[in-house]
Amino acid sequence: MYEYDMDFELVFHPEGEDSVTVRARRGESVLDVAKRVGVPIDAPCSGNGTCGKCKVRVVAGQAGAEGHTHISPEELREGYRLACATVVSGDLTVVVPEAALAYRNRIRVGDMKGLIEGAAFQSFRAAIPDRASECTLASLPVQLKEPDLHDARADAERLRRGAADALGCKEEEVSIDPSALRKLPRLLRESAFSVSCLLRRRDGESRILDVSARPEFPLGLAVDIGTTTVSALLADLSTGEPIAFGSAGNGQIRYGADVINRLIESAKPGGLERLRTAVTAECVAPLARRLCERVDRDADSVCRIAVAGNTTMAHLLLGVYGNHLRMEPYVPAFFGVTGLSGFDLDIGVHPGGDAFLAPAVGSYVGGDITAGVFASGIHRREDISLFVDLGTNGEIVLGNREFLVACACSAGPAFEGGEISCGMRATDGAIEACAIDESTGAPRLSVIGTTGQKPAGLCGSGLIDAVGELFRCGIIDARGKFLGEGERIARDEWGMGRYILCRASEAANGLEISLNEADIDNFIRAKGSVYSAIRTLLGTMEMGEGDIDGVYVAGGIGSAIDIEHTIMTGMLPNIPRTKYHYIGNTSLLGAYGMLISESARESVSRIADGMTYLELSSCPGYMDEFIAACFLPHTDGSLFQ
Amino acid sequence: MYEYDMDFELVFHPEGEDSVTVRARRGESVLDVAKRVGVPIDAPCSGNGTCGKCKVRVVAGQAGAEGHTHISPEELREGYRLACATVVSGDLTVVVPEAALAYRNRIRVGDMKGLIEGAAFQSFRAAIPDRASECTLASLPVQLKEPDLHDARADAERLRRGAADALGCKEEEVSIDPSALRKLPRLLRESAFSVSCLLRRRDGESRILDVSARPEFPLGLAVDIGTTTVSALLADLSTGEPIAFGSAGNGQIRYGADVINRLIESAKPGGLERLRTAVTAECVAPLARRLCERVDRDADSVCRIAVAGNTTMAHLLLGVYGNHLRMEPYVPAFFGVTGLSGFDLDIGVHPGGDAFLAPAVGSYVGGDITAGVFASGIHRREDISLFVDLGTNGEIVLGNREFLVACACSAGPAFEGGEISCGMRATDGAIEACAIDESTGAPRLSVIGTTGQKPAGLCGSGLIDAVGELFRCGIIDARGKFLGEGERIARDEWGMGRYILCRASEAANGLEISLNEADIDNFIRAKGSVYSAIRTLLGTMEMGEGDIDGVYVAGGIGSAIDIEHTIMTGMLPNIPRTKYHYIGNTSLLGAYGMLISESARESVSRIADGMTYLELSSCPGYMDEFIAACFLPHTDGSLFQ
Repeated sequence: MYEYDMDFELVFHPEGEDSVTVRARRGESVLDVAKRVGVPIDAPCSGNGTCGKCKVRVVAGQAGAEGHTHISPEELREGYRLACATVVSGDLTVVVPEAALAYRNRIRVGDMKGLIEGAAFQSFRAAIPDRASECTLASLPVQLKEPDLHDARADAERLRRGAADALGCKEEEVSIDPSALRKLPRLLRESAFSVSCLLRRRDGESRILDVSARPEFPLGLAVDIGTTTVSALLADLSTGEPIAFGSAGNGQIRYGADVINRLIESAKPGGLERLRTAVTAECVAPLARRLCERVDRDADSVCRIAVAGNTTMAHLLLGVYGNHLRMEPYVPAFFGVTGLSGFDLDIGVHPGGDAFLAPAVGSYVGGDITAGVFASGIHRREDISLFVDLGTNGEIVLGNREFLVACACSAGPAFEGGEISCGMRATDGAIEACAIDESTGAPRLSVIGTTGQKPAGLCGSGLIDAVGELFRCGIIDARGKFLGEGERIARDEWGMGRYILCRASEAANGLEISLNEADIDNFIRAKGSVYSAIRTLLGTMEMGEGDIDGVYVAGGIGSAIDIEHTIMTGMLPNIPRTKYHYIGNTSLLGAYGMLISESARESVSRIADGMTYLELSSCPGYMDEFIAACFLPHTDGSLFQ
Repeated sequence: MYEYDMDFELVFHPEGEDSVTVRARRGESVLDVAKRVGVPIDAPCSGNGTCGKCKVRVVAGQAGAEGHTHISPEELREGYRLACATVVSGDLTVVVPEAALAYRNRIRVGDMKGLIEGAAFQSFRAAIPDRASECTLASLPVQLKEPDLHDARADAERLRRGAADALGCKEEEVSIDPSALRKLPRLLRESAFSVSCLLRRRDGESRILDVSARPEFPLGLAVDIGTTTVSALLADLSTGEPIAFGSAGNGQIRYGADVINRLIESAKPGGLERLRTAVTAECVAPLARRLCERVDRDADSVCRIAVAGNTTMAHLLLGVYGNHLRMEPYVPAFFGVTGLSGFDLDIGVHPGGDAFLAPAVGSYVGGDITAGVFASGIHRREDISLFVDLGTNGEIVLGNREFLVACACSAGPAFEGGEISCGMRATDGAIEACAIDESTGAPRLSVIGTTGQKPAGLCGSGLIDAVGELFRCGIIDARGKFLGEGERIARDEWGMGRYILCRASEAANGLEISLNEADIDNFIRAKGSVYSAIRTLLGTMEMGEGDIDGVYVAGGIGSAIDIEHTIMTGMLPNIPRTKYHYIGNTSLLGAYGMLISESARESVSRIADGMTYLELSSCPGYMDEFIAACFLPHTDGSLFQ
């Protein structure tokens, strides 16, 4: 008995960071210990041993070599193990390689190409009616009389009087937020009692949210909280202009790649708080800080926030228990919340700033979709559109100005690089497009990044291309199995075939980039779930593919999506290519609309109120559609001729 | 050079607590190190070596014996040292005795005798007009339909609909606070979808602040933040009834007994945050928790708070830089702040609850006085009253329903037991009254606490009694010096006389309780500053003592105050004794009024707006008045005949 109660010492050496020494109990997996103490080891499959991403190297102590999938015999000899399959039975020292830390705070602050500069964005902005007229936030310079023994009014009363005089209102109608008050005494004396106030005017009252030495434009932050990736956009609220854009991996990824595993983790003791801080303190807060640094401002001067995310992400962001989302009858704690402030989000922005959350319509059709539909504009069109958001989950909306019906399909994380052996997000090093020479079988790759960037992995759009090309060239069959041999084709010791997209010597991190039959199988299930959802949705409305006037494809799949390949693989309907529009991260665009416009917020609310949510699992026929769609391109080949 | 940069190890052993090991730099005092690392050593004189309260025992390491006042040769041999006079020159291990930790979190939750049950309190409550009519907070039971696959509305939307139906309003007019939302999913399922909402109704909107399984009355907290003592009262806001009362030492005491030393400390790096948390996290938050425990509730269900405190305390509570308060032209950062919520106070109560702060009228006439005047009722009287608040500072208000003029005098902390060698707050063990037999010179003591409670020290009212009796019996002269010898009179090695109130063998902690000439000198300066302030205030209004129709004495001085002794010592005017009324902690009473009544809040605001603040230091003649008052009873004996 004694031995079973004993604790061992476990030392983690995350590459490039300080090591962490903790106590571990016999029988715990190294991954469980890491989750418990906050060492961010990537584990999209939540520790089922299926994804191979939690590969660590044991440098001291005993670790058995059994049951470690995804690890070559040579790697096994070098001490590589899956953290999820390594059970603690003594002291251990474990190196966590950079690759296994992949999703930690990797903030990418970039230009706004694709997102902001496109014609689609301009027309989106033009469609927001009051983007310049919503002047509830304004900057007001005030010159105050310096105090003396005959005029010893307090700083706050002095400022309120000065602001009231400048506004032509009563002093009682002006109030000061405590966070502005905290800055006031020193600021007044450093600036000879000449300051600029950031005012929020509402219901005849003016609240001084912030004070500064020089006039500063009010900052707003739009955030898309994706299951895999968090994106944010900083805007100047005086004009509505976006000024900085960035993204980061969602820190929750180490608790599972999909929302179900996150919800399960959140129901464990302390789990909700771990998941909340993994996205707030570890992800959105540093991202906001970095964006503000670009314009030399502090994150706490962000005085309005708009957030869109799926229903699970919204729950975890606010620290609200959402485990009922995954259990019949699939009831979330909330669809929408009003009256939120920066304080409630706990992301380092102004605690008194207004915060808006895009409302959900169902457990699996969240604020990312209501905001996304708003950004797509399909709710304003007379003709029938299909909105397809391909993120970690796939959501599909069919409709026009008269009706909107939505459903969610469990596409899995393949389109964001999850559960794909060499998958990655659409960031630097990702293969975003790929063509295969039919005669030689050799690939031609297009890689995200500056010229000369070596490939590091495969993102969603690259995956679609690769599978499409392998199928087109006859290298794989309709079930995704490799048909023959070739220079680029290899098989592992268990006989599973793979296609080598990039040899180890040419890859960014010296590891071969390939696509194996398990990856292709994951892709086929993902694309099958999308296509069958579209078919079911059309069927419910007694429509066919021919009734669709436009398809709007959104999501983090990468802007280089090749529509031909999506149709070739049987993922999207075989309709004229000109009807297809790739419109990027509509969740972020919609949040941005909500940030700069009151009428946009009202539109998103109306979209949520008017949208019908279709639960696919309760649709008769959906399962048959799905099974039929799990071929390349489809069991019914006539659909793709 | 090397040696000067070296760090030493300092181990603190606070009695009854875990020891703390820290690094210290050569030349730091032990008290400085303690302040830096948060070991709460009592230091009312801020480390000037004058109060003797920071007595610690060095049990290992070198500590010189020079410059340690208040320490007997025997104690020196036993290792006792003043922490402020002990300079680090090597590793040290220091025991911090219970006595030196005196002010740490000593929470006293008691009955409400004196404060609540007196006739004065009943008439005070009766004078609050809308104490029962202010029903902005209400409890609403709601029975909801359980969700199923055909009705998968979210919990929040379900509750809002249910509440709106019960209220007969629109669903959009009902919102949910995030902290209620966080409790909702589990609560609904544990209580078969039958819950009780705590609603705040304002401007036609209803906000669900809290949810519970059974109806619970709304809790409110009134707090008086004194420089030395923090008092709080928990009330049932459905009826306005007080339900629990408690007090605790202000954790800031280790940074100095008076507001000036606190402000100096707050201006050091990190000082403002240290002082803020010393009163919030260390004092008000645990006090609120303890009071709520008495009624089996959590502190976060306190959904309204009213706070009164002096101007410095209000600044430090909110974490607002107030150092300009102590520098000409004595300008605070604010007199009042509106729109505060529980979040801004950071004391563990409901973050979305409304918080009210009594407004100040000057740097040294704060919200404790505006709330106190309200509680005294002098602002409603036709005849002229004098309001005297004797806390760590003394504040005096003269006036009636037509005018109010106020001033502050630097009485020092003597009336709360500060800077008195055996001084203590008016809690268990404090000598609150004392008489001396003129023939034998022996004292008769009255001690706070249950029968048989041994004395531990002297509180304010006991101090007044002791000095008054010593003077009446001719044991001390008009300058406070001992005139002869006696059984109870002793002198130390430097010849300073003292009167032994209680021998070591009879005292609670085995230490003699005595009053020495330095203590008496402190008292004389304190009482002189009060009397001269009254004279100056009357002079300014061209009035005399005969114009005063009533004197209302408030403050933490102890309810056993003997008016005869206050007059005998020349502290309060020599007018008919029937004009005197001791009215207790009016700051807390006033805060309580603000807690339960909107019209009380308006009255306090009007009192603040209408009160004239008189800066004594700029009054010609005040200094002469003060010097003349520094005798027993006064240089001009005719004033007290």
